[in-house]
Formats: sequence, C-alpha cells, structure tokens
Amino acid sequence: MNGMIPRKIKGFRDIDPELNELRKSVVKKAGEVYELYGFRHWDTPILEYAENLGKYLPDKETVAEGVYSFRNPETEPVYKDDGSELRDESDFVVMDNHHLAMRYDLTAPLARMYAEELFMQSQKGQLTTKNAPLFKRYQYGPVYRFEAKLDPGRFREFWQLDFDTVGTSDVSADAESCMILSDALEAIGLDRSSYLVKVNNRKILSGFLETIGISGAENEGNVLRIIDKIDKIGVEGISFELGRGRKDSSGALIPGLGIDPSIVKKIGDYFEQFTEEKSRSEIIENLSSLNSGNEKFTEGVDELIKIDNILQASGYDEKRVLFSPAIVRGLGYYTGPVYEVESLLTFTDSKGNLRKVGSICGGGRYDGLVERLLGIKVPAAGASIGVDRLCELLVLSGNANVKTDAPVLIAVFDDELMSEYQKIAAELRQAGISTEIYYGAQRGLKKQLGYADKMNSPICILLGSDEFEKGIVTVRDLKLGNELSDSITNKDEWKQRVQKEVPRNELVSVIKQLLHH
Amino acid sequence: MNGMIPRKIKGFRDIDPELNELRKSVVKKAGEVYELYGFRHWDTPILEYAENLGKYLPDKETVAEGVYSFRNPETEPVYKDDGSELRDESDFVVMDNHHLAMRYDLTAPLARMYAEELFMQSQKGQLTTKNAPLFKRYQYGPVYRFEAKLDPGRFREFWQLDFDTVGTSDVSADAESCMILSDALEAIGLDRSSYLVKVNNRKILSGFLETIGISGAENEGNVLRIIDKIDKIGVEGISFELGRGRKDSSGALIPGLGIDPSIVKKIGDYFEQFTEEKSRSEIIENLSSLNSGNEKFTEGVDELIKIDNILQASGYDEKRVLFSPAIVRGLGYYTGPVYEVESLLTFTDSKGNLRKVGSICGGGRYDGLVERLLGIKVPAAGASIGVDRLCELLVLSGNANVKTDAPVLIAVFDDELMSEYQKIAAELRQAGISTEIYYGAQRGLKKQLGYADKMNSPICILLGSDEFEKGIVTVRDLKLGNELSDSITNKDEWKQRVQKEVPRNELVSVIKQLLHH
Repeated sequence: MNGMIPRKIKGFRDIDPELNELRKSVVKKAGEVYELYGFRHWDTPILEYAENLGKYLPDKETVAEGVYSFRNPETEPVYKDDGSELRDESDFVVMDNHHLAMRYDLTAPLARMYAEELFMQSQKGQLTTKNAPLFKRYQYGPVYRFEAKLDPGRFREFWQLDFDTVGTSDVSADAESCMILSDALEAIGLDRSSYLVKVNNRKILSGFLETIGISGAENEGNVLRIIDKIDKIGVEGISFELGRGRKDSSGALIPGLGIDPSIVKKIGDYFEQFTEEKSRSEIIENLSSLNSGNEKFTEGVDELIKIDNILQASGYDEKRVLFSPAIVRGLGYYTGPVYEVESLLTFTDSKGNLRKVGSICGGGRYDGLVERLLGIKVPAAGASIGVDRLCELLVLSGNANVKTDAPVLIAVFDDELMSEYQKIAAELRQAGISTEIYYGAQRGLKKQLGYADKMNSPICILLGSDEFEKGIVTVRDLKLGNELSDSITNKDEWKQRVQKEVPRNELVSVIKQLLHH
Repeated sequence: MNGMIPRKIKGFRDIDPELNELRKSVVKKAGEVYELYGFRHWDTPILEYAENLGKYLPDKETVAEGVYSFRNPETEPVYKDDGSELRDESDFVVMDNHHLAMRYDLTAPLARMYAEELFMQSQKGQLTTKNAPLFKRYQYGPVYRFEAKLDPGRFREFWQLDFDTVGTSDVSADAESCMILSDALEAIGLDRSSYLVKVNNRKILSGFLETIGISGAENEGNVLRIIDKIDKIGVEGISFELGRGRKDSSGALIPGLGIDPSIVKKIGDYFEQFTEEKSRSEIIENLSSLNSGNEKFTEGVDELIKIDNILQASGYDEKRVLFSPAIVRGLGYYTGPVYEVESLLTFTDSKGNLRKVGSICGGGRYDGLVERLLGIKVPAAGASIGVDRLCELLVLSGNANVKTDAPVLIAVFDDELMSEYQKIAAELRQAGISTEIYYGAQRGLKKQLGYADKMNSPICILLGSDEFEKGIVTVRDLKLGNELSDSITNKDEWKQRVQKEVPRNELVSVIKQLLHH
C-alpha cells in the first residue's frame, strides 16, 4: 500500500450511460453541422511536448499551474531553433528528458499539427503568411486543466468540440463561425429563443482604449480583464475597479487600477450605451459615430460590417447573432473578432433558485498562435463548444432527449436450463432487442428482480423447469408494474395485470409488443 | 526555446478523417452489439491514481517501465488500509503528492470504479464474494503504454473497446464473451471466414503442468511464457526453450529453462496433438482422455464443456469459435477461460509479401483484479477489441467501407460577391450538401483548384461578377474531370465535358444530380 484508497482523482469523473449517450449525441449532431461547412474530423494525441503547447510551459521540475506536466521517460536530443540537434564541445548530441503535458485545449495541438507539417518548409524560408495553406478541421475529446482551487461543478477533465480554419485572414470565416455555432446548437436541440451568439472585435476594444490613452499589451490586458466582468458587476462595478477599487459582497476590498477618473468615466460612458440590446446595424451606427479615426477601431468596425452583411445574406438575424461591444473573451491570444454563446435557458436548482448556465461556447480570431512555432504569422479563426457544460444545461433544462433503453432481463433459476436461456436471448437479440441473462451469484427471485429494477429493465423473463416442460415462459412487464404499483395495492391483482404465461414459440413477438405498447 | 521542434511525441499519432471515420464506425457497430447483450456505456478518466491501477506502480520518482506516471501536483492525505487518514506522532495528517498514471488499459480503471462504489461497504465487512453486485459495462477510448523500445507499427497511444461482466463466476459469461466477439466482428464487416475466436482455459494449462510436476506461480509463469510462443516457433522451438535453449534466426543464443528432457517431452507431446484444428467435441474428448484426476484440469475441462453447450445452443459452430489448448494470453491475471481472436485475412505489404495481422481481440476470466483493491475476491470476465489494430486490418484487407465525402468548393474571386457565395453555400447546406467557401489568401484559379484537388472536392463552383450579372454560375465536375483526364488529352474538349454554365436558380438541383451520378 502506498496510501491511496480506491477513488478517482479530485475533479475527475466517471461518466454513466445516460451522460455518455447525451455526449455522443451532442458530438454527433454538432459534428454533422461542422461537416456541412466543410470541416473534417482530425484527432491529435492527448499528450504533447509541453513546449509545443506553449503558454503553460513549466520551467521547473514541478508541474506548472494550470497543466498536468511531467518529464518524458525517454531521453531525446535537444534541438536548436533551426531544427538541427544541439551538440556539446565534444560534438556529442545533447540529450534531455523533454517536458510532456496533457493538452489543456484543442487549439494548441492544432497549431502543433499544422506547424509540424510545415516545419521543414518554413526552415527553408519557403513559407510566408500569404502562401500558408488553408486547413479546416474539427476535433473533440477531453482536455485537462489543473486548477489548484476547484470550484464546485468544475472539472479537471472535460470535453471540448472545436472547429477551426487555419490560413485565412478573411473575416468571412468569423461570420461563418457564428453561423456554425447557431446551427450546431439548434441541431443539438436548443431552440432559437434559448441561446444568443454574441460578437465583438478585439480591434475595436483595443482601438477605443488607444484613443483614450491606454495602450501597450500590459495596460490593455489589465483593463480588459476588468471589462470582462461587466456582465457580473455592471458598468458601475468596473468603473470602481478601474479607478480606486471597490468592496465585494463579503466586504473585502478589491483594489482598483488607479486610472484617472476622467478616463474611467470615458470607459463607463462607452459601455453604458451598449448595456441595452440593439440591432446589429444600430450598434454599427453607434460605433461609427464614436470613431475618431483610430486605425484599429476603423478596421474592427469594418470587419463587423462585413460580418453583418454575410449574416444578413445567409438569414441569421438578431434572434441568433447579436453584436455586443463589451464581450472580451479572456484568452490573450485573440486578435480580431471574438464570439461567445450565452445560454438563455433557466432552471431551478436544488435550492429552488432560478439559475442560468451562462457561456457555453466561445471562439474568435487568433492570428499569432502558429507564429510561436514557425516564426511566421498564420491567421486563423475558430470556436469551441463546451460539451460538458452544454450537456449539463440540456439535462437541467429538460432538453436532454436521449433514449437509453435498458435490456430485457432473463432470470436464471436452473443451470440445466442455461442453454435454453441462451437460446431465448439469441432469438431476442436477433430481433434487435437488447437482452441480458442474469449471471449473478444470488439467484433468489427477489435478488434478480431487484437487479432488474436497479438496471431499469423493462421486462423480466422467468423460466423454471416446470414451465420449460410445459413449453411456456412467464413474462413480467416491469415497466407496467412500476406504473401500476401506486394504483393497485392488492398484490395478486397487481401480479395478474403485469405477469403472464406465454407459449414459448410466441415469446419474441409478445416481448416485441410489450416493448412498443 | 527549450529545445523541441514542432512534432508529436514518438509513438503518438495524428488521426486523419478517413481513419477517424473508420474508428467511429468500428466503435459504433461493436458498441451496438455490446448493447444488444445488455452492456451499457460507461467512461472513466484517462488519469488515475497509479496505486489504483496497480501492476506498474512506480516505486521511485522516475516513471516506471510501461506506464506514463508522475506525481500529483496536489498534496493529499495518505490513507490507511481502512480508509482513514494516516497521522504522525503529533496527530497531523500525513500528506503526499500521490503518483498518478495514464491508464494502460480499460480493465484496471473498471476495477477502480467498481471498488470505489463498494469501498465503504467492504470496510464495514458487508461485502462478500457472494453478494458482490453484478455490473456490466462497455467502454472505449485511448490507453497509454510507455514501451521503451518501440517496434515499427506499434503505438504508445492506442484505442481499446472493452466489455466486462463483474460479479459473476458463471462461465456462461465467458461463452457469451466469445459470441459477442464473433457478432461484433461480423457487425464491423469481417465475414465469417476471415476470423476465428479461439478459446482455452488457464485451469487446464495449470492443471496439466501440475500433473507433470511444474507448480507454483513463478515456475508456471516461466513455462507459460514459452508456450505462448508456440504459434511463432512451433512445438520444436518451445521444446528447445524449455530445455537447453536454441539459436534464433540471427544466430543469437536464447537460453533455455533447463527443464528435465523427460518433462519437456511430455509438454511437447501434449501440445503436439493440438497443432491440427479439431472440432470442439474432439478437443474435449482428447482432453478428457488425458485427465489423470487433477482437480484444476477437471474443472477447466468441465468449463469448456459448459461453454461448448452454450455455443451449440446459440448456433456458434467451429467456423466461429474453436477450442485451442495452446492459447495462453500473456497477462498474468487470467484465472479461467481465455479467448483471443485471430484474423485470417491476409494482405500484401509494401514489399510484396503476404502477411497476417494476427490477434485482434483478447480476453478471459480474471477473478483477482478487484480483490487487490477491496480484499474480497470478485469474479469477472470480459474481452477487448484492439480498435487500432482492427482498423489497420480493415484498411489493409480492403474491408474499410467508410464514406468520407469531401465538401463542394465555392471558389472566391470577388469580395463584393461574398454575400452571394454565402447564399449559395447556405442553400446547398440546406439541401444537406457539405459545402466549403475558399477563404485562402491566394485567389488565383489554379491555387483554388489545387486546393479542391488536395481536399478531394467532387465539384467546384465558379462565380465572377460577369456571371453574377448574367444570373449564371459555372460548375466544374472535378470527379468526372479526374476520370476523363487520362482518356481526353485535348484541353478544350476536356473542359467542355466537365464544366458547364448553369442558371443560378437551378444550381442546387444540378449539384444534387452531379453528386449522385
């Protein structure tokens, strides 16, 4: 014993059949939409060289914040930037156990896959931003985040479902992303009033901040991090945090950025006008009227205009896609349009409170991700559905319409009859009916019916040697039995209603009937 | 830079759309068979406490042979066997960064899941072998093996597709395993002459070795490891290795176990009689005649008789399931019936040699796996399909019948027409036709057609402003173009055959026709 009892790692889950069916259904339906748009299904390993994933690269022996990482058990050469092996003074190849990491999203492995394919070409100086090949793919599967402090309902292993177009600077691809998210969510079963795709452009945010004197990656990042909270704390809240700070609900002081009050007011005024929902054209008008000639701002608004044109031409109105100038999207790597999907569905939680799940998809344009690996800017855009959060939403809101039929159970009373039980099972399976023979050690009727109940079996088949000799089989309709158990209290009457003897040669057709009644 | 170029870890792969479709098809079809037999789809994490997975438990800081393992970044209590926290002299809870491991199969996590559910009950002394609950599940996904020396064609990340019944000592479950494997492989698309399920019983092997004086886990294990090679080196080869050793094809000496020649002869004689294929009843007869009253041997043969009865009753003859007394199955944990599926398909490899893939599924009864975690013997049986190996087999033998339709490509010549391109795309997608708009930076016709060719697009839609004004669209049938490119050398004639102008309002129906011609 090394001191661990049988259990899962904190933040990890076993997935039961119901959730598995739901997950498969979500992935399948959204995947079909992605394919309609010309994306094809690629897969990458769950384990990668940490350096290729970037961002969380550990610089110590210990695992870095945010990612599960460890040293490769295999020793391999250390490479120079030009792809050749590093050699020491005696011309020996320098070897190392490189850091490995479990993927924390599906975008970083995409960048690795794309960069790997083109690495030699880029080393020869043959790759340019202009001739970088177009690559569209979708992918799904688990990703891993080691969050030291794990909030309730959050997991360290969860599924994402991404689509991306690499090698395009055309914001048509961003408009397409919004349409795909909308189509996918509707294919999954959300109706049009239950979600909203919200679009903004980082160029507009960045341009606006520039015009009021906030520039540079760090300053911009600090301000955007606060603006990102606007949904939770409102314009007033962010104004305090940009300025001299505020007290949160517990009374704790949240320090402010200390920005000059006149600038804070400009930021507040800017976002104040976007707190109400407006049509896309109204927002474009608003933004255009605010444009003081800043280049980024102009570019950003022009891109929104182009996106709006495409959405209009393709029939995606404001019931599906809105412009929302306060959307930031946390990730630092977005460089242009950003989008997220807000779920409008509400549900009552276990304490009786009405709640929302919030953001279920996110994405945007990231023109710098591949550059880190190849040294050449390769523009890209894409989005991700948070599969597990969406599944949770579907369950909580009663929209998880997956059928998980439990098998018919054949009770076992007599080893001599095992061949007959098997024959019955084979006949039922031949007819497409999921059937299980009870192989448990405890063969009492009560035990076997208890198992059937736990498994949610619709029907139990009972056959002893007496019945076998008479050529009959007893069939109990467990589903009906459950339905009647409240209204019929007389045991005999109940049994008469739910149980009957059936000639052996009519068994399959009787079971078929019962299953479809 | 930390010295790694953009690439996958050795032994890991990116999976392309064709292989992904095949994998999904295999998993879906086999999963449906598993469900017909009453197994339901559960999933477990890819990362577990190494101690719960067992077998490869690392006892040092470094990763142990065979498994990717590392220390949990989170510190947690050390537990005593009774589930309580270990405390030091000052009554502080002893904390540790427990070893984590990426799962190396799907059976060890199943045992953990089962044991976790019952841990409290077992601690209270309420769990016995007899009342251990029945649990049937199937599961699929990637598993991880760190094999320091990686043979060609082997991978460190590969997929398995398992079904297991926990809590049954009834060998009917083993008979069922064989039927399921047979049904699943046929559902996947192998025909009945292309595979064989081969069954043996470890009790028979163990009993036989006991009767000739070889007993004890270590001795038995050493002998079985050699018998396992009988398919490759024959009875003569194993006889040498059991005795004084042999030279392999390269001339290297393989040392022998040094077993007494008279005993080696008994082993050779035993297996000699099973080198030819015989009916199940002949094998049972053979074995029965060899039975000198050894208890294990007798039990093993009785179990084969029971399995044969069920197979017969259910209609599984020797074309599907054979008894094969030399089957060992490597894993030490098997305790009763073992089964593996041999592929009989042959294919010609790149060097022109006729080859086989060999074993594609394996399984058996393992009555000790849960015991390691709960201290209570819980019998179980199940099997696993090697998904990736099976996919390889299907591809190599020409049995991979998955359709991966490439999208129709809409070429982009004019930004002003982007809305029109989007409209066309929306109409085609509405009609269920996968459609991609070209978003690449280089818009020359040749570049766009080159992309269509690389993507295997069946059709390219060409629309410039002239055509737009005339209300027509040019459609090029790329598939036909490829077919005709050999027979028609005149460029104009070829173009006339594969390209035509279509009224804009007839576009969708024309594309539909072309796709189904």
